[in-house]
Formats: sequence, structure tokens, C-alpha cells
Amino acid sequence: MTLPIEKPTAILNPAIAKRNIARMAHKARRSGARFCPHFKTHQSATIGEWFRAEGVEAITVSSVDMARYFADHGWEDITIAFPVNWLEIDKINALAAQVKLHLLVESVETVEFLQKNLTSLVRVWLKIDTGYHRTGIGWQDTEALQNVARVIQRADRLALQGVLTHAGHSYGARSAGQIRAIYDQTVDRLVAVQAHLAAWGFSSVELSLGDTPCCSVIEDFSAVDEIRPGNFVFYDLMQLQAGACQWEDMAVAVACPVVARHPREQTLVLYGGAVHLSKESIPLEDGTPSYGALALPTADGWGPMIPDTFVARLSQEHGIVKTSAAFVEQVQVGDVVMILPVHACLTVHLLKRYQTLDGEIIPMAAI
Amino acid sequence: MTLPIEKPTAILNPAIAKRNIARMAHKARRSGARFCPHFKTHQSATIGEWFRAEGVEAITVSSVDMARYFADHGWEDITIAFPVNWLEIDKINALAAQVKLHLLVESVETVEFLQKNLTSLVRVWLKIDTGYHRTGIGWQDTEALQNVARVIQRADRLALQGVLTHAGHSYGARSAGQIRAIYDQTVDRLVAVQAHLAAWGFSSVELSLGDTPCCSVIEDFSAVDEIRPGNFVFYDLMQLQAGACQWEDMAVAVACPVVARHPREQTLVLYGGAVHLSKESIPLEDGTPSYGALALPTADGWGPMIPDTFVARLSQEHGIVKTSAAFVEQVQVGDVVMILPVHACLTVHLLKRYQTLDGEIIPMAAI
Repeated sequence: MTLPIEKPTAILNPAIAKRNIARMAHKARRSGARFCPHFKTHQSATIGEWFRAEGVEAITVSSVDMARYFADHGWEDITIAFPVNWLEIDKINALAAQVKLHLLVESVETVEFLQKNLTSLVRVWLKIDTGYHRTGIGWQDTEALQNVARVIQRADRLALQGVLTHAGHSYGARSAGQIRAIYDQTVDRLVAVQAHLAAWGFSSVELSLGDTPCCSVIEDFSAVDEIRPGNFVFYDLMQLQAGACQWEDMAVAVACPVVARHPREQTLVLYGGAVHLSKESIPLEDGTPSYGALALPTADGWGPMIPDTFVARLSQEHGIVKTSAAFVEQVQVGDVVMILPVHACLTVHLLKRYQTLDGEIIPMAAI
Repeated sequence: MTLPIEKPTAILNPAIAKRNIARMAHKARRSGARFCPHFKTHQSATIGEWFRAEGVEAITVSSVDMARYFADHGWEDITIAFPVNWLEIDKINALAAQVKLHLLVESVETVEFLQKNLTSLVRVWLKIDTGYHRTGIGWQDTEALQNVARVIQRADRLALQGVLTHAGHSYGARSAGQIRAIYDQTVDRLVAVQAHLAAWGFSSVELSLGDTPCCSVIEDFSAVDEIRPGNFVFYDLMQLQAGACQWEDMAVAVACPVVARHPREQTLVLYGGAVHLSKESIPLEDGTPSYGALALPTADGWGPMIPDTFVARLSQEHGIVKTSAAFVEQVQVGDVVMILPVHACLTVHLLKRYQTLDGEIIPMAAI
């Protein structure tokens, strides 16, 4: 890679991203499950086209603004996988008039609000908490489930599409075996909710799940109707640590200029801080937080992870890399190093656009 | 405050920010120290004018792009308080031809690079590590100091302005007394470096420091020539915890819509996640990380901190507030709550613009 790099830049290897997309699309197709990828990770109409080339027609996003961006770029079936924000009802109505819109509901008050304020029919998914405990109706909370289901039943502007969950606790896994156990448990819990709904008169309730660890490790999705992974298009250190990907699957790294060297302290100072990488961290084996791994640029991207080397601290613009005495000697001020991000979704969001290995600029949504 | 809020929005109270600016400008003036505020916090030409109204003529920034933005908005004396990024030398030369530009140097190689590549005279500061251990020449490392000083002496395109430090370890203080001790030690160490430089033939070497905790707590800056605080314009929870400000000094909060309530778990779900607040955290008394405090909007801004309530988790777009049973009952889906940020610099950078209490939009640099 001999690109003109002046400042922290998200470098994207399109071949890896396309391979990740093709692999996931193939698994979904083979399983007979709808592939409804989460576009919050890349937030780019250009990259969206790479999914369309694999037959993708329905997508997931995490905000109304993101739905608007992709609707404006020709996507016609969009799930906003976030609890309905009442304050954006006008924008939601505009979208619902234009595309096949899916919303997530988890409370009686939100269903009643939608029934009162929607101007078109919208498909809704019951958001179920299957163990991540972020939001949603607890999978065992039959009272709450029934209360919400009943108001949906009476609401002619809402059609229940299915039950949906995000098993985000899979990010804390440390092996494929642990991930498989979470997947099996998640499916069992969704099926239990589906059975309750059937008993209450809801037929053809679909099942949707979508965390990248589960979708990466599981080969057969025939137990569900839809998968919604997002991060897998790029992967990152968090997914590597969870056992969801290999180093070779990571499609994005951040090119950062070296601005100072401290051989005695065995540190490098990078132009690349919290406003470029995000302050997301993962624990190293001894619990020390790492804000990124380091590789060297190569003719076709970047090489292997440099051992005993990680981003140990971040200020607004500074990244402090802790490394070995030997590696400090290999690097000069003015060099560019590649930082593999902890959480690619947050990092690329901060960097606002991509530069491919050929130097092409791929824009992102300005939201 | 009855503003139209649809999504996470940085709400700025200009009266508080202007009071913070006036107070710091007054202290600097009274001490005979130059006030060279760091504009990386607000990144806004409009807010820059509030400083100009207090007599500020010289400013600090943390990147070449930020220097360009403020140069384009009429600032003519700019310090880029970041190790020189060689890869931006063309942009540095363009700036140096236009404004009085100050750069930070800490190595022989960077001084030699500048001497070779600069096309105008530039004032340089020796970046000194007085204990924060992020970057800079160790204050006791007389060998490195002398090596760098000697190449500056021979370099006719560089004029040594002084020695500069960022005592960022003051952010870890927990009382005004601890902050005062760090300030005194920092000044002593800068003075020691100044004495070495005098012995090597450098006269009129200025002293510059600039962390917000020290600049907030210290009343008399006559021991130094220049102060460069930035965060104090807004303050935040980190500064409150360090003992550098009061709740009433905080000028920015993030208005976030409530999208779900979980009375049993005593949590609220906000539209307001890592892409709005940043993943910067501070430890609560028991060590639990907090990503923000919560207040309720009032007619003129926001009220006191809600007790036993904090942002406990952040996903990309979700904020999970842990609170009391009583407070969950006070809040409804569709309400707006105010999140006081942990680190205002990172939060406002993510939100890209400000909305004042009157609904006026104040833009930020798009960098």
C-alpha cells in the first residue's frame, strides 16, 4: 500500500468485505433464512450495493436518519432495529409512505402511540430480551408479552411480523462453543415466545436474530426466518476475541501517522486518538484495556498483528502505543502504521469515509 | 426549555460558557499571563468570538485541520499543541505563510525535518513531559533536552519560544488540594528545564501549561507566561469529579429522547449511544463505570443531578440508564432527559453542532 496518507484514515480492503458478505449471504440462502443485514456498521450506499449484488433486498438500520439515507439510495424494505422514538413520528410516517417499513415495539404505550399517529400500515416486530438485558420484553414475561400482543391485535395500522432479538451477550464469548450455546438458547427462547403468541391467536410469527458472533459461527439458520448481522462485513478485534472471525477476515484498519517515539518507555505516539478510534476497549489477557492492535502496511493492505503491541491510551487526538524495545527501533517518526480497531462500527463512524487500497474514496452517510 | 428535540442534541447554555470564559480570562489578565485557550473543546468559530470579546488573540488547537479552520475564521496566532505530523508539512507551510504559527517539537529528527522542509519561520515550543507520561521530553532528561535544543539553535527556520507541558494527570485528582500540588510540581519542573536552557544560551524561554483542572483551581498564574486550558469552557463530569468545577459551571448537556422504560430492572433506554456521548467513562464511588449523569430539562436549561441515576451502558445508539424505582415512574416514553457528559470535548465532537437554549444552531468545524 503506497497511498497518500496525511491523517488518520479508515483503510478498507473491499475484497475482504465482499468475501465476508458473500459467505454470510450463502449461509443464509442455504438455510432458507432471509438475510437482512444491519447497515449501521458501514453506513455507506456504495457498500450497500455490494450486498445487493449478493441478492440482498431487505436491510436493517439503527436510526430513522439511517433509514432515510438508505431509502434515498433505493432500499425499499427497511427495519429500524431500535425502540420507536416517538419524537421522530413525522419522519417515520414519511418513510412508511415510501418503503416497506418495519419497526420494533416492546410496550403498550408505544403500540398505542403508533396506532394513533401512523398514517400508513407498518410491520412491527416484538423486541424480545433473550438474555442481553439491554431492552425488550423479557422472554419469560408472558404478562407483558400478552399485554403488548393484545393492543397490536386491535391496532389496524400495525401488522405483527414476528419476534426479534439481539443476543449481544455473545460479544462476551471467548470461543465458538460458547457462541453456539448462546445461539441455541436464543432460538429456544424465541420459539417459546412464538408458542405463546400462537396460543393467543397469532399465526405465522417470524423469528429474527442478528448478532455477528452467532451468525458467524452457526452454519445452519433454518431454525429462524431472518438474520440481521452487521459487524461481520468488517469484523474487528472484539469479534476476533469472541472467536467469531480470524485476523484475515478483518476488512478495515486505520492508517495512523507516527508523530513521536519513546524508546526508553517503549511507546510510540500516533496521530490517531479517541476522535478517530473511539474509546471502546477490550481487555488483554491480564485485564489491561487495549484500544487497538497494530500492523504494518504492506503492498496489498496490512500484515500480521505485531506481538506485545497495543494502543494503551487515547487522548482526543493522541494514541499511545505500548510496544517492545525491538519494535520501537523499527519505526520512525513520519511512518504510517495500521491500527486494527476494537469495534469497527464506532471507528468508521468517526472517520466518516473509507479509502480503499486503490485510493478510491467511499463516502458514508453524513448522519 | 421547550425546544423541538427529535434526536440526541448538544444543548449549550451560552451564559454559562461565557461566564467560564470571562472568569478564566480575568484570572490570566490579573496574573499577567497570556491566555491562549485550547479550541479543540468547542471547535466552533462562533464560540471563538466569545473568547475574542474577552481580549483573546492567540489560540491553541490540536490538529493542522483545526488550525486551518480557525485561520480561515480570522485567528492569526495559533499553536498546534500536538507533536508535528510530518505528513502534513504542506498544510503546515501554508498555515505558517498566513498566521503566526507555533509548533511543538520533542525530537532531533522532527527539528531537522522542519529545518529542511519549512518555507517560513515558525516558533517552536519544546514539549516537556512533567509527569503525565503521554509524550514529550522527560523534564529530567537533560541529555535529550540538550540534543534537541542544540539542533534548534542551529536551525534558522525555527525560533524557540519556550517550554510547554500538559499536566493531564491532574484529571485524576479528586480535590482542589491535589490539583494545587500538581500545579506547583509542574511549574517547578518547567522552571528547572528553563534553567538548563538558560545555561545553554537560550534567553527569554517562556513557560506554558494548560490543563483545565490546574487552570480552574489556581488563582495566580504569575509563575508562567501562558495558560492554554480548553475544556473549562463547558466543563463536564470528569472535571466535576476532579474538583475543578461545580455542577452549575457545566455549559453543555445532551438532550436524549426516552424510548423505553423497564420499571422492574429500574432502567430507562435512551436514544443516545456511543456515537452521541462517546465511550469515555468515569468510575462511580464503588468503581462502576458511568457514561453520564442525568438531569431533567427546565425552563432555563436543566436541573440538578438525579441521584442514584447514571448511564450504565452504551451501544452504538442506545444508552441504558440505571436509576431508582421512583425515578422510572416519573419518566415516560417520549420524554426528553438531559445527559451531562463525562468528557464534553469528545461528546460535542460527535454531535457536530450545538443548539442553544433559545433554539439557535451553532455550527462546529466539519473536521
